[in-house]
Amino acid sequence: MTNKEWSKQEKEIARKAFNVAYDREQQAILDDICKRTSEANDFAELWRLQEYLTEKRIEINEKYDYRYSVLDFVFARLICEGWLQEEDLEGLDDEKLDEIRRISLLLECG
Amino acid sequence: MTNKEWSKQEKEIARKAFNVAYDREQQAILDDICKRTSEANDFAELWRLQEYLTEKRIEINEKYDYRYSVLDFVFARLICEGWLQEEDLEGLDDEKLDEIRRISLLLECG
Repeated sequence: MTNKEWSKQEKEIARKAFNVAYDREQQAILDDICKRTSEANDFAELWRLQEYLTEKRIEINEKYDYRYSVLDFVFARLICEGWLQEEDLEGLDDEKLDEIRRISLLLECG
Repeated sequence: MTNKEWSKQEKEIARKAFNVAYDREQQAILDDICKRTSEANDFAELWRLQEYLTEKRIEINEKYDYRYSVLDFVFARLICEGWLQEEDLEGLDDEKLDEIRRISLLLECG
């Protein structure tokens, strides 16, 4: 990871991008859960939904970690998973963008 | 609790009543979860739903216990909670019905 400082302007860009990705994924999960719930016909299906929700909760809590020391990994993952586009990070310095792109290409997102 | 045997006919009545209550509660919970999901607007509300589902799963697994040794308690609770009516148990002998009614009145159902 890069050890570079984040300028005030970069911090604003980062926070905005972070929130955009969070809102996008939040809405997608809400829609998905709503659809899955409406399709559940018995307790067995409902408990599968409960397990799915439990996993999602753990995943989301782990993923959205706003510490500058790990933010390049976070953004790389969000790009890899499709919740962010590189354009959302425009304004970060080139070294950070290269690092994020590099990590993103290393990740395997399902 | 009573130690009385369950006749073949009583077992059939008991199984049918048990299944009726299970199906009623299952449908009510499915409808409730569907409504709650459609009203969730963010992760915080979704995680409350996840906690609620987890509690319901534990409650349902504990409640629907088809062992003859505890069946009077199970039926008393189901009556107390409104998932069964006494008419659903018609055909059980009077001693069992009295015991179920007695326990049901002792329970406090929310």
